[in-house]
Amino acid sequence: MSRLPSPAGAGYFARHTVTGLTGELRAGRVSPEDLVEQALAAAARLEPELNAFVTLDETGARVAARRATEELAAGVDRGPLHGIPVAVKDVVDTAGLRTTMGSRHFADRVPDRDATCVRRLRAAGAVIIGKTATHEFAYGPTGDRAAGGATRNPYRPERMAGGSSSGSAAAVAAGVVPVSVGTDTGGSVRIPAALCGVVGLKPSHGAVPVDGVYPVAPSLDTVGPLARTAADCRLLWNVLAGRTAAERDDAPPMVRRVGWIPPDTIHPTSPRVAEAARACLAGGGIAVEEVAVPEAAALARAYHTIQGSEVYAVHADRMATAADLYDEEVAERLRGAARVRGWEYVRACDLRDRAREAVAALLRVHDLLALPTVPIPAPPLDARARAGDAGADVRTALLALTSPWSVLGLPAVTLPAGLVDGLPAGLQLMAPVGGEELLLAVAQELHDATTETESPVPARH
Amino acid sequence: MSRLPSPAGAGYFARHTVTGLTGELRAGRVSPEDLVEQALAAAARLEPELNAFVTLDETGARVAARRATEELAAGVDRGPLHGIPVAVKDVVDTAGLRTTMGSRHFADRVPDRDATCVRRLRAAGAVIIGKTATHEFAYGPTGDRAAGGATRNPYRPERMAGGSSSGSAAAVAAGVVPVSVGTDTGGSVRIPAALCGVVGLKPSHGAVPVDGVYPVAPSLDTVGPLARTAADCRLLWNVLAGRTAAERDDAPPMVRRVGWIPPDTIHPTSPRVAEAARACLAGGGIAVEEVAVPEAAALARAYHTIQGSEVYAVHADRMATAADLYDEEVAERLRGAARVRGWEYVRACDLRDRAREAVAALLRVHDLLALPTVPIPAPPLDARARAGDAGADVRTALLALTSPWSVLGLPAVTLPAGLVDGLPAGLQLMAPVGGEELLLAVAQELHDATTETESPVPARH
Repeated sequence: MSRLPSPAGAGYFARHTVTGLTGELRAGRVSPEDLVEQALAAAARLEPELNAFVTLDETGARVAARRATEELAAGVDRGPLHGIPVAVKDVVDTAGLRTTMGSRHFADRVPDRDATCVRRLRAAGAVIIGKTATHEFAYGPTGDRAAGGATRNPYRPERMAGGSSSGSAAAVAAGVVPVSVGTDTGGSVRIPAALCGVVGLKPSHGAVPVDGVYPVAPSLDTVGPLARTAADCRLLWNVLAGRTAAERDDAPPMVRRVGWIPPDTIHPTSPRVAEAARACLAGGGIAVEEVAVPEAAALARAYHTIQGSEVYAVHADRMATAADLYDEEVAERLRGAARVRGWEYVRACDLRDRAREAVAALLRVHDLLALPTVPIPAPPLDARARAGDAGADVRTALLALTSPWSVLGLPAVTLPAGLVDGLPAGLQLMAPVGGEELLLAVAQELHDATTETESPVPARH
Repeated sequence: MSRLPSPAGAGYFARHTVTGLTGELRAGRVSPEDLVEQALAAAARLEPELNAFVTLDETGARVAARRATEELAAGVDRGPLHGIPVAVKDVVDTAGLRTTMGSRHFADRVPDRDATCVRRLRAAGAVIIGKTATHEFAYGPTGDRAAGGATRNPYRPERMAGGSSSGSAAAVAAGVVPVSVGTDTGGSVRIPAALCGVVGLKPSHGAVPVDGVYPVAPSLDTVGPLARTAADCRLLWNVLAGRTAAERDDAPPMVRRVGWIPPDTIHPTSPRVAEAARACLAGGGIAVEEVAVPEAAALARAYHTIQGSEVYAVHADRMATAADLYDEEVAERLRGAARVRGWEYVRACDLRDRAREAVAALLRVHDLLALPTVPIPAPPLDARARAGDAGADVRTALLALTSPWSVLGLPAVTLPAGLVDGLPAGLQLMAPVGGEELLLAVAQELHDATTETESPVPARH
């Protein structure tokens, strides 16, 4: 397995990682102002096709980059994200910068406070260049229903980027930014990360504060990082989680046993996608044992019951007064969510409690569980029924392998597992609650094992 | 205010409390075998009218009474309930003794294990004389829909006993047993206790194990004691809660501030019932300040949403396969419960979380909160619409003042507050979670302040 080739025409950050830039920035061979210009230039060039951003904040980004440049020059070092351009999903509040939820309901909304995760980003010296596209209200895994239109897959523009963090994944994959912030309720970081060929982490439920983040389904919602490499993803994860250097665990992971969940036991899966994911593990020298999670398919169904009930509780008033402002498909799906019964929700929560026990037992025997992130490569934009698979719909397929772990509140990471027909496939790893460090360390080992050394950074001026 | 007169024709235990019998039993002036014969005789005499029991276990009770008699004679003392006849609601499993849930679904079911609370009763030497009537599946506050027919109010046989622990309340009020076990989901101990003029405690949610108890709505279900006096109620509470002598707090309560919730802010209330409840406090020398619980009426509505969703999750399969075995009204109410939406359940749980904070703040200022237990005296059997109050239904009225505290998981006690038109009225007191001891101590003080001294026990032989 070789390193995933970047999409054609990708920007500067397809070749430069945060990790790689750390020394260059401190040696003065590249500056935060250089980096923000690279990001803005790539965005200007790629956006007409990609549509990864709702708002680009050239002015704000340049001001922040100048401050970061001056601080570094003065010896003030805020850590590895200091001066690094990041993009933030447009459901996360940024003070003074329009935050639309990808919806006409909030087309002109400018919050006056930062979400906690954004405050942490700024404190770490990161330079926010703009707000990334999201499926409307982060409610949809396809990334092609939003006030601003569909985000396109950097590998093939007629394909979905996946959702709901469509823009955060596409912007990283296309090299516009090295890292970005997404949100994940049932797969909204992992699905677009997998379809766009980047690394994405869904943290344990509750690990990153969600204040200032528009809710989808509060018992499931998380905020998570996306990056081109696991090492960069880890740098952003540490900031989002508010972990001090002392709290970070840099010991090499001790992974002895990895359980492979045959994905077809949950949802019909492309054999080539499944093979790519297994080969990624094998390429990193990780042997697997097949394990069964008999509850997984039921958990994927329970996901829709839990998420439907909770999302309609968020939107009921707005649906009663201004349903016509929603994208038509989103409104129709909300009407379906409204029909979920209370007793079904209660039973889904009961299943969640039972399955938590069962999967926790499995994770006492296996250090990690693994399976593909998404059972199919990126479908065409607007595709809804799966070609050649009567009755299975695209949304259900996209969510099938990620949502069970969301229901359980477990952390999960997706990493690129090569291309299938020119489109990325993703390998997903899950750990017990609190196991983000382990997941990212293993993802990094797998990346190192399958990647050539990074090329040196050319000075740009 | 004087002691509540017993119903006409009441049995032995209308004149003898557990507390009063403690010394007599140990002095050998009365024996457990005497007591069980008194209980069985009263039951035989009163049952044709009262219908408080589903099953009387003469044989088992006599065996247990003999053992208790022998143990006491041998100096084995299991504590204050040793040799005391008790009755247990027929939704609580008793090994070897039929447990029907008041339903044709379980007409012949004999469990092979005791519920934990029953195991504790037996270990304390209590003598179980039988299983008391319950509204079918403990799902209804009227106590007049069950496979075995309606339980009648000991004060007036054409009136409801209240429910769902109808038989447990009626059997105590009628002096068949001194104490009994009930269950309370939204008021199922407190409502019949108030309507029958006895003391009843709904413990904090989770304080007494519910294993072996048929669920109504698990996030609300509790097991609680009923007795004719607060002192006796406390003895049974200690056993049900599994509290050792060392864990019991016998210090006198320090009650400085009691908040009175005007009941009309929650549900239209009979002025005479409200006056009786306030007079009970005043008679005990307890001054009150009026307080507002703005969330209470919404909590009473949220109760129906939460309970409806959870109860149908319990009954969905049975309703799908054997709906005709339910009482017709119970089945119809279950069909209504099935229609509650998931998003409504989610919102009700959100309200619960918010109101918990608000009421906890109130309970940091006030030691106790007080209001009537039920806004009306016992309605006629089968009454559903409230006379003279178009649109208000009896079930909603019965539950209105008890269910808000169930939603919050708080402990609450009801104690007799005199007669209104010859029917008992109840005073309800609520405390913070874990405040059962305080509630029972205050109830006991109020009882002592309003009651003449108990007459000496006549030896029966």
